[in-house]
Amino acid sequence: MEKPYVIGMDMGGTNTVFGIVDARGNVLSKSAIKTSTHPDDVNLYINDIYNELMKLVVSAGGLDKIKGIGVGAPNGNYYTGNIEFAPNLPWKGIIPFASLMADKFGIPAALTNDANAAAVGEMIYGAARGMKNFIMITLGTGVGSGIVIDGKVVYGHDGFAGELGHVCVMRNNGRLCGCGRSGCLEAYASATGVARSAREILETNTKDSLLRNIPSDDITSKDVFDAAIEGDEIAKEIFQFTGKILGEAFSDFIAFSAPEAIILFGGLAKAGDLILNPIIENMEKNLLPIWKGKVKVLFSELKEADAAILGASALAWEI
Amino acid sequence: MEKPYVIGMDMGGTNTVFGIVDARGNVLSKSAIKTSTHPDDVNLYINDIYNELMKLVVSAGGLDKIKGIGVGAPNGNYYTGNIEFAPNLPWKGIIPFASLMADKFGIPAALTNDANAAAVGEMIYGAARGMKNFIMITLGTGVGSGIVIDGKVVYGHDGFAGELGHVCVMRNNGRLCGCGRSGCLEAYASATGVARSAREILETNTKDSLLRNIPSDDITSKDVFDAAIEGDEIAKEIFQFTGKILGEAFSDFIAFSAPEAIILFGGLAKAGDLILNPIIENMEKNLLPIWKGKVKVLFSELKEADAAILGASALAWEI
Repeated sequence: MEKPYVIGMDMGGTNTVFGIVDARGNVLSKSAIKTSTHPDDVNLYINDIYNELMKLVVSAGGLDKIKGIGVGAPNGNYYTGNIEFAPNLPWKGIIPFASLMADKFGIPAALTNDANAAAVGEMIYGAARGMKNFIMITLGTGVGSGIVIDGKVVYGHDGFAGELGHVCVMRNNGRLCGCGRSGCLEAYASATGVARSAREILETNTKDSLLRNIPSDDITSKDVFDAAIEGDEIAKEIFQFTGKILGEAFSDFIAFSAPEAIILFGGLAKAGDLILNPIIENMEKNLLPIWKGKVKVLFSELKEADAAILGASALAWEI
Repeated sequence: MEKPYVIGMDMGGTNTVFGIVDARGNVLSKSAIKTSTHPDDVNLYINDIYNELMKLVVSAGGLDKIKGIGVGAPNGNYYTGNIEFAPNLPWKGIIPFASLMADKFGIPAALTNDANAAAVGEMIYGAARGMKNFIMITLGTGVGSGIVIDGKVVYGHDGFAGELGHVCVMRNNGRLCGCGRSGCLEAYASATGVARSAREILETNTKDSLLRNIPSDDITSKDVFDAAIEGDEIAKEIFQFTGKILGEAFSDFIAFSAPEAIILFGGLAKAGDLILNPIIENMEKNLLPIWKGKVKVLFSELKEADAAILGASALAWEI
């Protein structure tokens, strides 16, 4: 008998979420653990996943019902199943994560970049339904991307294609990035990037702001959002700045693959028009004439956790 | 009987070259005309092509032997057969070039971007043989690109993907580009871009240089090359500057599609190590760690005219 379920798992810099998914894309059950509780030993992390996930598996009828495990992970290599040199994860070097998972559970496992997994989820179940060419941009702890061309995720020569969080948006005097380089999109448009922008703008400016009530080092992107909703001018300026950097970067991405849409996913996407308006304004201003007014910028239509679980789970059907 | 030949045609900003090609990729005969002699009427230009090309067709046994015409043209849209808003061509707006050619010759015609055509030529006959993921960069009057992913040219949602000459490499105070925007890669790395760099560097510098013997407005990229070969320091600095801009841009292109190689084609590629060394140095310096030392930068292995003719001709087999 064909096994009826797969496991989808998404490893973020902070949380790891996983769920049991059926062939129609229903998430039957899900759970989560912290990603960084065992920074020295990935096997202990896998043990934690096993203990938590097996509760769901047992409820679903046991491992016999599960075809395989699909994993979305930062710097995940689809071809090898390895996580390689991920700057936002505690384990360094090359981690053969798919094979460790397969050994632990005794069922097949496949792995890809978390943003690629989210793109697949969006294509099958979300805002990119029916699209064959789009770019998914994930705005979270880091900035990731999943590029879909002709209906397929772009993996490139080595399995690592689509690291658009690490294109250079500030060639001179750019901010240091977690990857060790400087000027990356991620250093500006991630949650921490927005918080850095807040500190920078507050320090180079004397305007009143609700954000001045928060100790500078404690400001988060959520605080900036809350202040902007209250009408705070500085907070709105921070979104304008972030949107400008994103919009300019998008105009270059479009010159590469001419997508039908760019889809925004993750925490920053919750800012709605506050971030969307400056993105579209600056993207349009910088586009080649042939693309002006032609490329949509949309928000993900999937719940954040589900998109990643669903996308990752899609891998497991094809093992 | 299967028709044994196709026509491949490449429309450049300056010259238009065409030839008769057999199924094994031999260019049996070829010829050329100037592109810009009839800036007001594309039909007169097509008449000129017809008159010149029919001589070759007659020698090959007549139109009955020709399966179709493949055209590589700037801003050529594979999906529609139109040339749309090409900044480096004399005819403005949308030109239904493939259908005009098909009507004139009475055989089918297909069209793509000239750089995409060159990429196909390189993949079948040149430096990209056996590669499924590479980027072709054409350094001529303009800067074009053909992106190949999984063995297929990327056309994108609308047929225009791969305009890497128009990514922004200088966000502030960038040079004006032929496309009407500023800071484009093309404004720095095209033949005219190199000549502009020469004028800029000569004016901000008092060093002796062979280039000072040439009236500033007359300096060409060829002059810069000739001077560099003579050991001229300013000329070498111009190549360093151009290579830096290209190398930095390449590091971003790699973050997009993780190609096995970037292949350089066109006039500037003739500068050999003078341009290759600074490209590789700056590309490596800016790459994410996962790609350092992994991506080749190669020169085209096809004669300039043949690559474009061969690539364009490949389209005609599939009409």
